[in-house]
Amino acid sequence: MRFAVAPSGFKESLDAPAVAAAIADGIRRVVPDAVVEEIPLVDGGEGSAEALAVARGGRIIPVTVTGPVGTPVESHFAMLDERTAALDMAAAAGLRLVPRSHRDPGLTTTYGVGELIRAALDHGARTILVGCGDSGTCDGGAGALEALGARVLDADAQPVGRGGNALRAATKLDVSSVDKRLADTEIIAAVNPYNLLTSVAQVFGPQKGASPEQVRTLAAAMDRWADVLAGHCGIDLRPLPGSGASGGLGAGLAGALGARLIPRFDVLLGHTDLDTRLARADLVITAEGTIDYQTPRGKIPAEVATRAKRHGKPVIALAGTIGDGAHHAYATGIDAYTGILSAPVPLAEAIDHAAELLTDATERTLRLLLVGAAMR
Amino acid sequence: MRFAVAPSGFKESLDAPAVAAAIADGIRRVVPDAVVEEIPLVDGGEGSAEALAVARGGRIIPVTVTGPVGTPVESHFAMLDERTAALDMAAAAGLRLVPRSHRDPGLTTTYGVGELIRAALDHGARTILVGCGDSGTCDGGAGALEALGARVLDADAQPVGRGGNALRAATKLDVSSVDKRLADTEIIAAVNPYNLLTSVAQVFGPQKGASPEQVRTLAAAMDRWADVLAGHCGIDLRPLPGSGASGGLGAGLAGALGARLIPRFDVLLGHTDLDTRLARADLVITAEGTIDYQTPRGKIPAEVATRAKRHGKPVIALAGTIGDGAHHAYATGIDAYTGILSAPVPLAEAIDHAAELLTDATERTLRLLLVGAAMR
Repeated sequence: MRFAVAPSGFKESLDAPAVAAAIADGIRRVVPDAVVEEIPLVDGGEGSAEALAVARGGRIIPVTVTGPVGTPVESHFAMLDERTAALDMAAAAGLRLVPRSHRDPGLTTTYGVGELIRAALDHGARTILVGCGDSGTCDGGAGALEALGARVLDADAQPVGRGGNALRAATKLDVSSVDKRLADTEIIAAVNPYNLLTSVAQVFGPQKGASPEQVRTLAAAMDRWADVLAGHCGIDLRPLPGSGASGGLGAGLAGALGARLIPRFDVLLGHTDLDTRLARADLVITAEGTIDYQTPRGKIPAEVATRAKRHGKPVIALAGTIGDGAHHAYATGIDAYTGILSAPVPLAEAIDHAAELLTDATERTLRLLLVGAAMR
Repeated sequence: MRFAVAPSGFKESLDAPAVAAAIADGIRRVVPDAVVEEIPLVDGGEGSAEALAVARGGRIIPVTVTGPVGTPVESHFAMLDERTAALDMAAAAGLRLVPRSHRDPGLTTTYGVGELIRAALDHGARTILVGCGDSGTCDGGAGALEALGARVLDADAQPVGRGGNALRAATKLDVSSVDKRLADTEIIAAVNPYNLLTSVAQVFGPQKGASPEQVRTLAAAMDRWADVLAGHCGIDLRPLPGSGASGGLGAGLAGALGARLIPRFDVLLGHTDLDTRLARADLVITAEGTIDYQTPRGKIPAEVATRAKRHGKPVIALAGTIGDGAHHAYATGIDAYTGILSAPVPLAEAIDHAAELLTDATERTLRLLLVGAAMR
């Protein structure tokens, strides 16, 4: 039997290669002679640049940048070749970089993302791939633009300051001092197209630590920011697919710098040969930290299932947590899913033992499949 | 498709009929026209007398007795017919009746179990079925015997007092004042035959709250008690199957009153028509609160699997918790098992939502079986 194991990483726990390896171990416990293709996938969030560097023989460049709460953080980007860089915004402004005590997405900044882009320009990159995902910010990319020389001004022509909330006072975007090298640089943002600027504050604000009141404030700020960007580029970006990616970073890069917003899997999966490998599998196993109502909205298991179903392949998904609305995942082509937990434990303990839990859960799942196979 | 759903109850959460109903709901979500036979099973522990009363048209008699820590508790037994009573010792001396602050099995007593037996005699019972399981005691049944008129004496011919620890001083059992009606009464203890007096303190003491030091004390007490019982009845009960049931209650009833210790499922499953219903099922689903190294040692899922395998039926098991050594369950005939949890939560929360978790997990499991069936 041939298995295609195409999982996401589990956030704050296991990266995608580790998830794939743990699942493969579980398969071999039940089907010792199984052919297992491990196809770890990234979604533009944490680890994406590293994964692309490994896949394409690039190298990682360490850079210290301004973190999301203003203190320096050790970050990095990848040079995939002499003219192409890849970075994940999460390496400079990810939720993980925001201490729990500071989780107010109205105050955090993407300034460090702009610094990463500048560093990539310094290294000669003229195509820069910006992975969006796992952000701890909701500043519409204004911080990143500021780091590249742009200025967001209020009615008195004064800079509005950093953070999403400050954008409520924005009236004008001034790009006259923006880094000149950007003129002949292509910026491609790898985005989840389901994320729109219209709803980013409401949908993702709470996950990033915003209270209902803070969400309302931020929503108003994003609305203002959309007007300012429209005044600059002539396009209302609110309904643009991916404009809400990474707290509106997509909109900022597109509106101010002409970045292209590309559905993330079209950008990120090119090197994986995913479709060929799905087509020759007997069973496809995907996985993600959480399966819930968001899964169909551009998450890795949904992408894998959609592609696998083009080849008529059965797909099962393993999840650390099965959340609200998980059953919507069936509509994407996932035939069955299951959780990996074996006992009532706190999240931290589950995270610590994620690899073992995954392997054990894979074994149990395969045994259930064999029961089904024998019943027919 | 015909399903036999033959689960145990989930301790401190759902009784067996509720578990069976929750699983049946999950089956019907996936196979709407399924024929589902719900066969809730009891093991002699909590709820067994009630289950037998329901199955055999008996009635429940409420009685107030001395609880395991000496305070009165509302208890009950069942009159199955005019001459036959059934009780579960857990209704008078169960672990649930021992406040967490008092969980030292060296101090708790089965006195109330003797009171239940006396009440059954008062109601005319001359066959008394004593379900063993879920006990919070380890007094070798000495408390129950005391309530029936026996005396456990020390070297000075003084009563040793209640609780397992006190038995270290026991030298003699005096049954001269025991209730005379017991002479023409048959007492049948429904026991887990894997529980031996030799090891009851070591195996179950910790579950009942004993520290390692307390376990050593209790083990010595059980050893002394075995000598005293042997002096009385002429038989070393230590290796007798079921002598360790309910903290040695089995040994006390057998050694002092000539009770028969019968493997619990031989006593308890007679009315369920279990074998016939397993024989005509396409799939057998069993369940228990925990599947672990103890499952093969006489637990309900193991009994169900063993019987189902005589008819060549596939068996899957659902568990609230998958504990250490769960894989030993495969040797009993369980083909696959899975956990019901969907997210990292505290035990109390899982218990509160057990029915919903079971139904959801059953749905997921059935979907996995269908994937397997389609792959063949």
